[in-house]
Amino acid sequence: MGAEPIIERTATLPLGLTMGDPAGIGLEISLKAWLRREELSLSPFCIYGSADALADRARQLNLEAFPIVVDAPSEAASIFLRGVPVIDIPLQVKALAGRPDARNARPIIAAIERAVGDVQASKIRAVVTNPIAKSVLHEGGFRHPGHTEYLAELAAMHWDGGPFHAVMMISSNELKVVPLTIHVPLSLVPQSVTRELITKTVVVTHAALIRDFGIASPRLAISGLNPHAGESGLIGTEDRDIIAPAVEALVAQGYDITGPLPADTMFHAAARSNYDAAICMYHDQALIPIKTLAFDTGVNVTLGLPFVRTSPDHGTAFDIAARGIASPESLIEALKLSDSMTRRRALAQL
Amino acid sequence: MGAEPIIERTATLPLGLTMGDPAGIGLEISLKAWLRREELSLSPFCIYGSADALADRARQLNLEAFPIVVDAPSEAASIFLRGVPVIDIPLQVKALAGRPDARNARPIIAAIERAVGDVQASKIRAVVTNPIAKSVLHEGGFRHPGHTEYLAELAAMHWDGGPFHAVMMISSNELKVVPLTIHVPLSLVPQSVTRELITKTVVVTHAALIRDFGIASPRLAISGLNPHAGESGLIGTEDRDIIAPAVEALVAQGYDITGPLPADTMFHAAARSNYDAAICMYHDQALIPIKTLAFDTGVNVTLGLPFVRTSPDHGTAFDIAARGIASPESLIEALKLSDSMTRRRALAQL
Repeated sequence: MGAEPIIERTATLPLGLTMGDPAGIGLEISLKAWLRREELSLSPFCIYGSADALADRARQLNLEAFPIVVDAPSEAASIFLRGVPVIDIPLQVKALAGRPDARNARPIIAAIERAVGDVQASKIRAVVTNPIAKSVLHEGGFRHPGHTEYLAELAAMHWDGGPFHAVMMISSNELKVVPLTIHVPLSLVPQSVTRELITKTVVVTHAALIRDFGIASPRLAISGLNPHAGESGLIGTEDRDIIAPAVEALVAQGYDITGPLPADTMFHAAARSNYDAAICMYHDQALIPIKTLAFDTGVNVTLGLPFVRTSPDHGTAFDIAARGIASPESLIEALKLSDSMTRRRALAQL
Repeated sequence: MGAEPIIERTATLPLGLTMGDPAGIGLEISLKAWLRREELSLSPFCIYGSADALADRARQLNLEAFPIVVDAPSEAASIFLRGVPVIDIPLQVKALAGRPDARNARPIIAAIERAVGDVQASKIRAVVTNPIAKSVLHEGGFRHPGHTEYLAELAAMHWDGGPFHAVMMISSNELKVVPLTIHVPLSLVPQSVTRELITKTVVVTHAALIRDFGIASPRLAISGLNPHAGESGLIGTEDRDIIAPAVEALVAQGYDITGPLPADTMFHAAARSNYDAAICMYHDQALIPIKTLAFDTGVNVTLGLPFVRTSPDHGTAFDIAARGIASPESLIEALKLSDSMTRRRALAQL
């Protein structure tokens, strides 16, 4: 096959968007994103979720968005201008905004599984996920630490080459951050920071910046764990004994990486101009700067999987569901980023 | 005494500015701040430090600033337009930019002690400190964890009512943050977060916001320790078991305080509009957002002392000393804040 058919096929495949928890804001931000498809030249997407719940939410909020059930993602592109293409996954019980129901755990998960199956079968280009609430799914029997880890497991089931080391990145125009540890109590963070984890995370991040973000020679910065990156061991020893040797070994392998840097002075504009992504030691160290700088537009990207997955960088927001105030900005950025990442991957195959 | 004499006297007393480590940028930013005295209508200050070292640095950088040795701070105001008033504290060895020398530890410390003595004796209005390097002073026999702790000890020696619970605040136009713990290894932070420390810190911060910042009814926000403030105990228990009960008790006492809040979503513009100061659990949680938002203009303020003390929010910066590129912005903000805080205190006494 020549070059053009591949690009053509990639561009015509829709993005797959999972509904997330239908009691949250996922339904309405998906509809709001669709309403801006022409203004923003969005690539076609189809929603994996309940057509009824989408129609209900559109009525509640007076959104001129009409779900159209399709049998296959391939139908999405041709109807995208007229209506919202939906791979219908009916709920067990009617979705009430702001009132999550564990009885809907099964369809919420089914939407994710079906989308991953379809991306593996090259029916969609990428998976964009709306937020889920772990506590609700736990009640429904879901036993994974989170969305990202679940996707890594699904990937290992569907693809050769696993297990996959999934790495979370939050990406915005201003800043890209990668937390080394994520939903770990702060007291367990120091012992979770290992040379092996640093190395794996750097390797995955570096490869993704080249392949998915088109950065030919990625520059990475890595934060210290302790205040002032430990001040040569005066304030904690992990920076000196674990992070610094890991960085030295990576530099010896040719990676362009600096650190451990004092985390507080890494994120102002002049400092950010020195790197393409910041590897941080823990959740708040990574998420505070990006949500301070880009609260509405950050995108959660999972690196290291055999497919592209993005997600808005917020939760289900049950407290504001169906109140008409939820912003679709982060979801729109997630759709756009999935689009650009998959186009880059297709081009790289030529 | 009536009202006017007090205001008059307060306004005519100079601010006292300590030289900090003369191998760092303290000398040059002090001179640069003085050069902008008219443009910015700065209140007179006198420098506690080496007149020779100041003159040398001025020559090196071609700054048209001339140190004038004064015998007492009272002489500062009348000469402030012509020259830089200096309470002369000679060095032991000549200061070389970028090459700190422990033999100068004694005069560096003497400058701080003399300024604190003079503020106690009402000869100056406030103490503004240039950065010191703890490692250099340690070599010279200094045995205090840091600048702030040392000032608290000096205060306890000079004033009745001690010991004083010194609280560090970083203040900018965008945000005020207070780290509950400061130069503590991350692994020791969880055990350092106690109800007693939270309560003391909130009480001191609340009082200072009223007295020094003129905020009649301060609104405080307090961060969680763990990611997502622990998600009801799913990610660490300290938020639920220690911070939340401390906050409840404070609310019951009438404090306007909310939290524990997830730290990553506390610092965007809309969130910041809900509080006057954020109490954070540890160094990077507090310092990352403020240095991301206000890298050049944050001021380090010590609350809870019997006198006003501010400081620029950066270190000695030995690596750029005498290179002509050090920004005086944070020091200028520190001088201005000391000025406004002392004027407010004087007014409050009327």
